[in-house]
Amino acid sequence: MAAGIDPKVRPFHSATAAFADGSDTPSAYLERCIEVIDAHDGTIGAFVATNFDGARAAADEATARWKSGNPLSPIDGMPIGVKDVMETADMVTEQGSPLFLGWKMGRDCAAVAALREAGAVVVGKTVTTEFAATQPRGTRNPYDTDRTPGGSSSGSAAAVGSGMLAGGTASQVIGSTIRPASYCGAFGFKPSVGGINRGGSFDGFSQNCTGVIAATLADTWVMAREMSSRAGGDAGYVGLTGPMTLPEANKPKTVALLQTAGWETATDDAKQQLQSARETLESAGITVIDRASNAAVEAAEEAISDANPLSRDINAWEGRWPLNTYARDMDASKLSESSRERLEQANGMSQEEFSGHIARRNEVRAIFAKLADHCDVCVTLAAPDAAPEGLGWTGDPNFTVCTSLLGVPAVSLPVLETQGLPLGLQLIGFQNEDTAMFAAAGAILPLFNT
Amino acid sequence: MAAGIDPKVRPFHSATAAFADGSDTPSAYLERCIEVIDAHDGTIGAFVATNFDGARAAADEATARWKSGNPLSPIDGMPIGVKDVMETADMVTEQGSPLFLGWKMGRDCAAVAALREAGAVVVGKTVTTEFAATQPRGTRNPYDTDRTPGGSSSGSAAAVGSGMLAGGTASQVIGSTIRPASYCGAFGFKPSVGGINRGGSFDGFSQNCTGVIAATLADTWVMAREMSSRAGGDAGYVGLTGPMTLPEANKPKTVALLQTAGWETATDDAKQQLQSARETLESAGITVIDRASNAAVEAAEEAISDANPLSRDINAWEGRWPLNTYARDMDASKLSESSRERLEQANGMSQEEFSGHIARRNEVRAIFAKLADHCDVCVTLAAPDAAPEGLGWTGDPNFTVCTSLLGVPAVSLPVLETQGLPLGLQLIGFQNEDTAMFAAAGAILPLFNT
Repeated sequence: MAAGIDPKVRPFHSATAAFADGSDTPSAYLERCIEVIDAHDGTIGAFVATNFDGARAAADEATARWKSGNPLSPIDGMPIGVKDVMETADMVTEQGSPLFLGWKMGRDCAAVAALREAGAVVVGKTVTTEFAATQPRGTRNPYDTDRTPGGSSSGSAAAVGSGMLAGGTASQVIGSTIRPASYCGAFGFKPSVGGINRGGSFDGFSQNCTGVIAATLADTWVMAREMSSRAGGDAGYVGLTGPMTLPEANKPKTVALLQTAGWETATDDAKQQLQSARETLESAGITVIDRASNAAVEAAEEAISDANPLSRDINAWEGRWPLNTYARDMDASKLSESSRERLEQANGMSQEEFSGHIARRNEVRAIFAKLADHCDVCVTLAAPDAAPEGLGWTGDPNFTVCTSLLGVPAVSLPVLETQGLPLGLQLIGFQNEDTAMFAAAGAILPLFNT
Repeated sequence: MAAGIDPKVRPFHSATAAFADGSDTPSAYLERCIEVIDAHDGTIGAFVATNFDGARAAADEATARWKSGNPLSPIDGMPIGVKDVMETADMVTEQGSPLFLGWKMGRDCAAVAALREAGAVVVGKTVTTEFAATQPRGTRNPYDTDRTPGGSSSGSAAAVGSGMLAGGTASQVIGSTIRPASYCGAFGFKPSVGGINRGGSFDGFSQNCTGVIAATLADTWVMAREMSSRAGGDAGYVGLTGPMTLPEANKPKTVALLQTAGWETATDDAKQQLQSARETLESAGITVIDRASNAAVEAAEEAISDANPLSRDINAWEGRWPLNTYARDMDASKLSESSRERLEQANGMSQEEFSGHIARRNEVRAIFAKLADHCDVCVTLAAPDAAPEGLGWTGDPNFTVCTSLLGVPAVSLPVLETQGLPLGLQLIGFQNEDTAMFAAAGAILPLFNT
């Protein structure tokens, strides 16, 4: 099943002390990544393209900077992958679509330009489902190669989960960061809406947000923060703010346990995992409220119960373009069946209907925001089960889509297991309270002894 | 000076009755446009590229539809130009930059896809300043070829002003729609922020908005509305709504006369033109309030007095990308001096400073919004003078930048003159009250007997 792969994430921040004292170097760190890529990417299929020469040159420069005591940032020398909806100056951007094989504009997207300015080493482009939507592109889960790594950030999750990279960029409009992180045993972070500049990224939906998949909580935060401090948020948004290092741990007083629409499809064992997690929190003196005990939680649960269909309606209208021009002006036969279906749905929609959906989304956001008076952070599962078998479906997003709809931050902690496979514990914060969510995560994580 | 050009705009809506009765056709209409282009574009330089074959084929199809009584929309067969920051499937998109000579992705941007669905005939790509910013690209004013047509929508304004096209797309982040419309004797419309989907358009600033330059008030509204109804607004925005035909004229009771920061540079004659316009409104029984007579007007004037520097700070940060990757990964020597200066300014800014600018913009917007309790619409000049001489500068934007900062709609009516050249009377509405602004414009326009 796992084809000789020993999936282990590769922390970066904890490795940098050795860069500073000279006992390790970014160049050597990179070679260890490339070794895993060479050994296993033939099976895993995490990459669309790699640029080892460019990465080695960048790592050598980082090595020199650490040696001289002048790293550009805490992620100087960090080997990363870039989800293949984000433009890179040195590699193709194919968007997981046969329409864009070999396509390249010659520039970096805003987030990648920021990462390079921070010294990050861009190793390759990681596989995305077609247009970061539903059609998978063959990547396998490093824990069980007969299973999906999740999507749409399939390649970043599989590469980080298997130790091919220290981190990868991701994006989420339904569940595309948190779900694959859960399936691949990595940390995943979807910031508040607008958190990281999407200029030069082919994912223009209003709910979409660039995020990070990485090996540790600190790596996840710092990589995101290095992007936002240099590139800012989406146009008009200040973007992710807060300390440049991992926010100091701060134990929440009260946590709201959410079932979300995912509860209906969650396995009994997954539900039991969440129940155990609740007991762990309570043992640590944290009050856990839920829909049965608190009316504001119940109101929030009700409000987000239709997050998936509402999000899909919003995305359909917002995604009519560019599917309409791809179908008419390029080659409709190269669109997947699911893309053609989405276009058909969009063609049947009106601006007025969309207006209704946006009004409803605003209502749902307002109801959820009131929950902040009752708790510090929310907790739920990141997925209803371990990664499903087969490569034809990237899995159920019902535990994750609510945060996309709400525009609130979410982080998946790889601290649970089911079927002997990874399962994420998802923390959900309030809009633009990303720092507080990470502070809570920093306090909760040690309770799980990982 | 005018090199034999007789600048006359070319109304479309009023021509369609003849399409319906068979006495004229979209194909014949297009040929009249091409005749002017052939005669004068060598001098004017409004176009980056044309596709006459494609346009003729599209006009023939429109001709058949009008003949059979089944036009796709009121703009079926309308010959238009597309500002060269917006992608077109059949033509290059060069963004006014030597970096992108010949660049083409093969798709239509969202607004152009919508226009084609409505039957519009895309004749060519119209010249923009470099990246829709300040560096001019040689287009001349049809009223005086020694003068600028304004920018950044230089080509669309010059082409519409000279009757080469019935309409053109435009965009404005400082003054790029209203100012060139004023200089070229055309109607210009900048919708409320988010009004028309900018997917596939290289103008990602938060204040930017796709707009229209056309020959009549009706053509201006209908062209914009055909885009928004099909393509929607920017992601997350409902976009421009209202009737599909020109909103019914509705005489405002009270109009606020604004000086804006433009007053300082306005010529005495231009000021006199506005004073005369005020008298025209008052003669029609409209109450005109101003900063001297009304405290809310004075508060709004104060709030928008720094609109230009504040907008430029916001744009600098938001425009750091892609200038940073163009300079580093492409060819910095192909960036204009002004682009390099903007990049340098942006490199010196921080996310925290930007946060302060956005907070200030929100304050200014809130102050302006209160003016809606005191008047139905605002009026001012569209420019401080006629088009300035020379092609090295696209003119003073101080009468227009306030609406960009505010995110409110503006329309320029070509009803004034100075130095024997066109000067626009600018109406300014309140956010998402584009329909009301056009209703007021419809009542005000006939007062000027044009």
